[in-house]
Amino acid sequence: MNDPVRTGIDTEVRYAETDAMGIVHHSVYLVWFELARTRLCQETGFRYADIERAGHYLTVTGVDVRYRRPARYGDSVTVTAWVDRIGSRGLRFSYEVRNAEQLLATGTTQHVWIDNSGRPCTMPTTYRPAFERLLDRSTVDA
Amino acid sequence: MNDPVRTGIDTEVRYAETDAMGIVHHSVYLVWFELARTRLCQETGFRYADIERAGHYLTVTGVDVRYRRPARYGDSVTVTAWVDRIGSRGLRFSYEVRNAEQLLATGTTQHVWIDNSGRPCTMPTTYRPAFERLLDRSTVDA
Amino acid sequence: MNDPVRTGIDTEVRYAETDAMGIVHHSVYLVWFELARTRLCQETGFRYADIERAGHYLTVTGVDVRYRRPARYGDSVTVTAWVDRIGSRGLRFSYEVRNAEQLLATGTTQHVWIDNSGRPCTMPTTYRPAFERLLDRSTVDA
Amino acid sequence: MNDPVRTGIDTEVRYAETDAMGIVHHSVYLVWFELARTRLCQETGFRYADIERAGHYLTVTGVDVRYRRPARYGDSVTVTAWVDRIGSRGLRFSYEVRNAEQLLATGTTQHVWIDNSGRPCTMPTTYRPAFERLLDRSTVDA
Repeated sequence: MNDPVRTGIDTEVRYAETDAMGIVHHSVYLVWFELARTRLCQETGFRYADIERAGHYLTVTGVDVRYRRPARYGDSVTVTAWVDRIGSRGLRFSYEVRNAEQLLATGTTQHVWIDNSGRPCTMPTTYRPAFERLLDRSTVDA
Repeated sequence: MNDPVRTGIDTEVRYAETDAMGIVHHSVYLVWFELARTRLCQETGFRYADIERAGHYLTVTGVDVRYRRPARYGDSVTVTAWVDRIGSRGLRFSYEVRNAEQLLATGTTQHVWIDNSGRPCTMPTTYRPAFERLLDRSTVDA
Repeated sequence: MNDPVRTGIDTEVRYAETDAMGIVHHSVYLVWFELARTRLCQETGFRYADIERAGHYLTVTGVDVRYRRPARYGDSVTVTAWVDRIGSRGLRFSYEVRNAEQLLATGTTQHVWIDNSGRPCTMPTTYRPAFERLLDRSTVDA
Repeated sequence: MNDPVRTGIDTEVRYAETDAMGIVHHSVYLVWFELARTRLCQETGFRYADIERAGHYLTVTGVDVRYRRPARYGDSVTVTAWVDRIGSRGLRFSYEVRNAEQLLATGTTQHVWIDNSGRPCTMPTTYRPAFERLLDRSTVDA
């Protein structure tokens, strides 16, 4: 039974994020996803900035995004993130972007752990239990 | 038999496109895709800027990107784009990003035609033959 | 005696905002200024998004920024904005960016009002008193 | 008599660079300046990417930009850069952005040399003569 920890951040649409169609440029959603992922990582008790300082990186190996409705300057959006898969060398996050109740976009990002030398590595054992708790909230409560 | 028209653009990595990992931020690839898509549209004989001025927009409804190797400041990359599917209301483009011979990333973007009111519409008949020629080069030669 | 209304916004450094030097790219400060300017405009009682919808734009005609200390991923910064000059056709905003007590950067942006046709115009009389109150808080209290 | 070496780069406006006003966002000009500065540095015979790899950085301490006319998607702009001042610890570049003959913007950026530790340092002697030749083309010919 899988009930991942979901974390949301709110962000105001920035004028610089809009394009000539008058809507938020589609590349910006990846930046918003990252913002939510940063917050979700904090839930592990390890800030991602500290993980990098300690010599490990969660490099991005794949992304996909589905856009349903546009966001505009003046809107405030909520981006929710959760871990939806953990492997020995990587993990996958899922996201939802909403403007109030309206679903604007969904997406996933795939990541591989790399070390200081830039080579893929297994997930550092220091972080593993913390990230596993993100995947299934029921293990926290148990 | 499908042999789509491929168009490539060369672009130098901009310092502003890199991030604290020392590599190009993954969101930038969508901007590079767009640059190659703009060039590919020119091959139809209709500049995308003019298509918008005439009241039609190719809005982005989905993207996916696979990242294989990073790009860095000092690199110059080639982005190749081609149309890989045309439907009555939308189309899909495919992309490859290379640094010399090395494949850095691949991806696709899905688009739906909308009109000035923001509503999805069928592909304007003015552009249809031109885009169909992009899909299958053999129809041009035939 | 001039005691302008100052408004501050807090924003977390986004990974995408950093560059290969490991610090926030200098162009990002203009985006942060804009975020604080948007908030400051709200203090007038007129949201900038609504001002545009009503057909007026505060176009940017000049910027300058002095950078003192870098910001990094993991930092949260406070951007303070205030109006420091109002003319018949434009205005100037000033900014400070701080990380806790440390001053990271200062700057100004100059703006000219334009109308829907893209031509410079005098400041719409609807907004003038509200913006003048931003310039000198004492007029509000008087 | 000062006749600095001027270098120009051409760049096509990217859709992602535009904003909801339908014009290029003002922060993008700093990215364009950087592109021209990179090219100008190449004229010294030292690529800036290599200078960084060797442990020196030209950090940005100040910028100013004056905007005269907007750039739009579909436009191609030429950005010209030259060194207009060299000090013992820093230098200043000047820029012009044109769309064909029309001047769109002018600006300057100020820089200080820092070393790997992040501390300001004097200009590395390796690069000094090369940068001085940029300042005054007549010294090259002399």
